[in-house]
Amino acid sequence: MDISHIEHIGIAVENLDEAIKYYEQVLGMKCYAIEEVVDQKVKTAFFLVGTSQTKIELLESTSPDGPIGKFIAKKGPGIHHIAFAVNDATKALQLAGDKGVQLIDQQSRKGAEGLDIGFLHPKSTLGVLTELCSK
Amino acid sequence: MDISHIEHIGIAVENLDEAIKYYEQVLGMKCYAIEEVVDQKVKTAFFLVGTSQTKIELLESTSPDGPIGKFIAKKGPGIHHIAFAVNDATKALQLAGDKGVQLIDQQSRKGAEGLDIGFLHPKSTLGVLTELCSK
Repeated sequence: MDISHIEHIGIAVENLDEAIKYYEQVLGMKCYAIEEVVDQKVKTAFFLVGTSQTKIELLESTSPDGPIGKFIAKKGPGIHHIAFAVNDATKALQLAGDKGVQLIDQQSRKGAEGLDIGFLHPKSTLGVLTELCSK
Repeated sequence: MDISHIEHIGIAVENLDEAIKYYEQVLGMKCYAIEEVVDQKVKTAFFLVGTSQTKIELLESTSPDGPIGKFIAKKGPGIHHIAFAVNDATKALQLAGDKGVQLIDQQSRKGAEGLDIGFLHPKSTLGVLTELCSK
């Protein structure tokens, strides 16, 4: 698989405003976008990490029955997923599937920031919810 | 805080050999070092992510009473911590402490790969165990 870098780390938070304050005031990052992804029932805030290509994506659930709401109910707030940048997310998903990885998405769909994204199931990835994304 | 990039993502695994196989054969990364950190009761394997400066650090506990052993017993295998690269880990820890963050390490100590490292307590960082490290 042609992973070039970590596109982002997804972090589940209970309160986006409070979390933005922590990332800006303590860690010194700057929130450059806030976006609601209606079908995922989340509001997200994005930060670039230093001078790298990697982002922090904070995720607040807009509904208790969304994936982030359920995650927080079960595990509490914290790191939710890791997203790797690849050249072609659909091809990378197929490649993972061919190697026996259980796929949440059989092919890519549109995610935040207009990226093509798809998820590998944590049962097949040693407990790490893994996103593959491409432009 | 002068975070330049994500130095690594720490991932707790039950079996290092099995995990290395997944990261190499499915994700296509190459393990470039294996190191035991005796005082942390872990054996670690390192991978560079693509062409970036960021690493994946797989952590297998060498004892059930070590931090990784306890983490897996409580939460199962998965993402354990995020490590940010800073210019001076001790100064960055002090800065975080001054802003009210609870510190696990009051000043930096030697970690894997000879880095100066220190941890912020997840109670103060919205559930994310956060490492600061410098060369």
